[in-house]
Amino acid sequence: MFNLDPALTALHGAPSPDERSAIGVLGGLGPYAGLDLVRSVFDETEASHDQEHLPVTLVSYPGRIPDRATWLADETAPSPLPAMLEVLRRLDDAGCSVVGIPCNTAHAPALYDRLQDGLDADGREITLVHIVDAIVARVGEVAPKATTIGVLATTSSIENRLHEIGLEAAGFHAVVPDATHQAAVQNAIYGPRGLKAFSAPPLPEARDALLSASRALIEDGAQAVILGCTELPLAVPEADHGGVPFVNSTRALARALIRATHPAKLRRGHGR
Amino acid sequence: MFNLDPALTALHGAPSPDERSAIGVLGGLGPYAGLDLVRSVFDETEASHDQEHLPVTLVSYPGRIPDRATWLADETAPSPLPAMLEVLRRLDDAGCSVVGIPCNTAHAPALYDRLQDGLDADGREITLVHIVDAIVARVGEVAPKATTIGVLATTSSIENRLHEIGLEAAGFHAVVPDATHQAAVQNAIYGPRGLKAFSAPPLPEARDALLSASRALIEDGAQAVILGCTELPLAVPEADHGGVPFVNSTRALARALIRATHPAKLRRGHGR
Repeated sequence: MFNLDPALTALHGAPSPDERSAIGVLGGLGPYAGLDLVRSVFDETEASHDQEHLPVTLVSYPGRIPDRATWLADETAPSPLPAMLEVLRRLDDAGCSVVGIPCNTAHAPALYDRLQDGLDADGREITLVHIVDAIVARVGEVAPKATTIGVLATTSSIENRLHEIGLEAAGFHAVVPDATHQAAVQNAIYGPRGLKAFSAPPLPEARDALLSASRALIEDGAQAVILGCTELPLAVPEADHGGVPFVNSTRALARALIRATHPAKLRRGHGR
Repeated sequence: MFNLDPALTALHGAPSPDERSAIGVLGGLGPYAGLDLVRSVFDETEASHDQEHLPVTLVSYPGRIPDRATWLADETAPSPLPAMLEVLRRLDDAGCSVVGIPCNTAHAPALYDRLQDGLDADGREITLVHIVDAIVARVGEVAPKATTIGVLATTSSIENRLHEIGLEAAGFHAVVPDATHQAAVQNAIYGPRGLKAFSAPPLPEARDALLSASRALIEDGAQAVILGCTELPLAVPEADHGGVPFVNSTRALARALIRATHPAKLRRGHGR
């Protein structure tokens, strides 16, 4: 026999198939949201023992990535772009073929398009999976008959119409919170007692504010409610609000990453 | 002004202090145990917003790393060594200064010492933090008066006396399960309904077997019980067993990694 150890062959020869299709996670936006995406990839994978799980690399360097919403509102503030691009290059160097960014706000065109431009300028072929595409695909899975979709997200995402544009392009009608509820949602994320400060565990008041805003969206006709900020499922982990499905953007992104790399391993009929 | 953007300076100049002290996690052994170590690093860090969290890179390539216990019992079985060394090299290349391996079994000298030898042969300076050293340090924190310590671990670790040797070197008396309880602990990890197959969530019978073995150790005089396999806290997340502290090996390793890189950020008086 020429090779007793298949792992050795894989390491010293060409990259193994496993390696070429690794999933990258640009984490730290925030740290727990990055972790939640990795966990969702594991949870959404058909696997009965360790070795059947998918290859994932997480780079979580929160100290180097200034807040996205602050910079989107004022481009003279410290930019998250260089550090995010550097992490993407590392994930590419580490053999990842696709990357998920578990931060809805970072998908605003003023930021996301420049990340893609930066990768293109470098000649990098790593594929970014857009979280809004993943969410729209997931709406079709969890609420196949829904036509009106509610959106809970940061004020930055709402002002940029990030989810609305994607939903409308796919033929949905989008509803967003009124100014009072939106301020409460934003406070539940960024406030001194919000999810960015207290995520493990979150404080009950953050959860209450999110459920109250969700209820108002349902009263406005929403037949599904998007949790369109990766911090939100940390406080609202359940699958639905009184029978109206939540669409968890982290889980949607996890499923899109698996579908893009190992479609046969995508768990069926599970989760939100 | 020469540089409007501090992040840009950090990226194109020397590595930032943040970067030089990144924590690496050799994950995939199993996947959820790797995730649990990253979460424990976050949980044990003093931080009030995203940017205060520590830099962490997780590489979880379970498909390339054969089972450690199987190889330790029979070195003609597929070896986990080459793939584990390759992940360690990657974590070094990615700027990590220390690495934790969230798998107690992998710290058996026959495996761990060869990982260290491989790094030395490469001239790599990245530091491996030994999980048993971390556990012994943690015993002193959670049970400062204890002299007799119980060990729950894989049969491989028990047969290698992995934890016992470390505990005895530090002046403790170690107690381990009898053959019947040890078989039940092993089954709770590796059995068809054990934690390697069902970790999210674990099945109640795995938890029951672990608590029953723990109770027997306490009856044998244990004043603290080490959860000496990183799968175990997935089924036994609580801090103590009727007042006798559990020492969670994952949390102990997380604290040792923070202490080795950012001691001022180590959370005080928290967790197990």
